Amino acid sequence: MTETKQMHRITGNTRLLFMLADPVANIRGNALLTDFFQSKGADAAMIPLHVHPESLRTVLVGLRSIGNVAGIGITLPHKIAVVPLLDQLTDRARDVGAVNFVKRDAQGRLWGDNIDGLGFVAGLQASGVEPFGMEVLQVGAGGAGRAIAFALAAAGVSHLHIVNRSGDKAAALAAAVQDAHPGCRCDSGDAEPRSYGLVVNTTSLGMRPGDALPLSPELLSPRSTFAEVIMTPAITPMMAAAQARGCRVVEGKAMLVGQMEAAARFAGLW
Amino acid sequence: MTETKQMHRITGNTRLLFMLADPVANIRGNALLTDFFQSKGADAAMIPLHVHPESLRTVLVGLRSIGNVAGIGITLPHKIAVVPLLDQLTDRARDVGAVNFVKRDAQGRLWGDNIDGLGFVAGLQASGVEPFGMEVLQVGAGGAGRAIAFALAAAGVSHLHIVNRSGDKAAALAAAVQDAHPGCRCDSGDAEPRSYGLVVNTTSLGMRPGDALPLSPELLSPRSTFAEVIMTPAITPMMAAAQARGCRVVEGKAMLVGQMEAAARFAGLW
Repeated sequence: MTETKQMHRITGNTRLLFMLADPVANIRGNALLTDFFQSKGADAAMIPLHVHPESLRTVLVGLRSIGNVAGIGITLPHKIAVVPLLDQLTDRARDVGAVNFVKRDAQGRLWGDNIDGLGFVAGLQASGVEPFGMEVLQVGAGGAGRAIAFALAAAGVSHLHIVNRSGDKAAALAAAVQDAHPGCRCDSGDAEPRSYGLVVNTTSLGMRPGDALPLSPELLSPRSTFAEVIMTPAITPMMAAAQARGCRVVEGKAMLVGQMEAAARFAGLW
Repeated sequence: MTETKQMHRITGNTRLLFMLADPVANIRGNALLTDFFQSKGADAAMIPLHVHPESLRTVLVGLRSIGNVAGIGITLPHKIAVVPLLDQLTDRARDVGAVNFVKRDAQGRLWGDNIDGLGFVAGLQASGVEPFGMEVLQVGAGGAGRAIAFALAAAGVSHLHIVNRSGDKAAALAAAVQDAHPGCRCDSGDAEPRSYGLVVNTTSLGMRPGDALPLSPELLSPRSTFAEVIMTPAITPMMAAAQARGCRVVEGKAMLVGQMEAAARFAGLW
C-alpha cells in the first residue's frame, strides 16, 4: 500500500538512518522518525531494512562503509546480538546489555547506545513529571524494564522498587542498578500500596485484549503518576483504572518522542 | 536544504533501490525515480548512498543480504569496477563491459545489467521514432556510446555508422557490435551527409557553454531525426541547429524515462 503525505524528499544531501528489523513488513514507525527530523528542520530520513539474524554482521560492515549514513536503529531481534559487533558502547548500553541505536561517526566507527530509558525519562519530563528525588515503583524487569530502571536511577530517583513475575529477575536488576547508582535505594519484592509518587509499567500487559492488569489499581494513590510504555492502545486498561482513581497518567507515546529526540542528538542531527 | 513535495512515504513494505555514487552531494535524480515508481503505483523508493571505490565490494555484500532491497543503480565511478563483483551479467552488460543497474533477486543474487542503451531506444520509441530498419549515424564511442550502439543494433537498425574523435575507438566498437549483431551493417570513418534517418550524439559536447558542435549540421537532412543523450541543457546547440534545419529532435530526457522504465522492469517492480 502506498501512502502519500506532504513530506521530505530524499536527495544526495540527506543524512540516512536505517532501522534493522526482522520481520520488516508493516513497519511504519520509521516514517514518524522521518517526520520528526523534518519538523525540526533536519534533512534526514529513517528507512527500514529487512535483516535476518545471520546477516546482521555483514549488513553492519556494509553500512559502516557508506558515507551518508548517520545512524542505525536496532529493533527485535537484534538488540543483544548487535552488541559484540560494535566499536564502542555508551555506559547506558553496557549497563542494559542491549543496544537499540547506533551512531556512525565520520571515521565509520559504530557507537552503540540504548535510548529506551533516556527516552522514557525525557518523555516523563516533557509531560511535566520530574522523577528526580521521587520514589518509584516499577513493574517488569525485561528488556525495556532494564533500560528504564537504569535511566530512572541515573535521573536521580531516590528509591526504585522493582516488582516482576519472576522475583529473581527483579532482585538481580535491582542489585545491578544499585551497584551502578549507589545514591539510589534499589530493591525488589512485594510492593506496599500508596507510597510511590511514580508507578511505571514496563511489561507488555495491556497490549492485548484480555491481558491481566500489571498491578492492582489499589497500589496507586490519587496523587501518584502512572506511566506506561505501551504505545498501542494509547490508553491501556491500567491507564484507565489509574485515571479512574484520579492519578495523572503518561502515555507510552511520550517515550517515543523522547527516544526520537535522543536518537537525533546521538546521531548528531542537531 | 530540504524540499517538500506531495510524495511517497517509505515503510517496511517499500521495495528499496539504492544508487551508489561518489560524490553523493547534490544528487537529486534519485527523487525523479522515486516519483516515477510512485506514478506507476509501485511502492518503491530510490535512495543515494555515498560509496567510495574501496568500499564498493563491502557495501554490495551488505546490500545483497538485505531482504527489502530490489535493485541498485550504479553511477560514476563504479560502472566498470562493479562488474567482477556480481553473480550474473545480462548479455547487454557483457557486451558493453559496464553495469549501471543491478537487480537483487529473492535469493540475494546480484544480476548486472546495462540499461543505458535500452533506455535510449525506449525513449526514441516513446517519442515516436522506431529505429528498426533505419540507417543510423552515431557520434561518439565512449561509455554511453558503447551501450547505445549495441542497443541500436539489437533494436534492428539496418546500418550503424560510428564516428568518433579517436577513429580507432570507433572502428573497434563497430567491429564489436558487428560481431554481436551480424544482421546489422556496422562501420566507422568519415560520415556522408544526408544519408541517415537517425543521427545520435552520444558525446558530452553541448553540455558546457562554448563546446564545439558534435557534428556539422550539414550532415542532417530535414527528414533526419536528431537524438541527444545530454539532459542539461534540455535543448543543446546541436538540437537547436537540427531544429533550424527542420529535423525532428529527441531530447536526452526521453532516454532517462526509458531507463527508469527499464530499471523498474528489470528489478521486478512491475
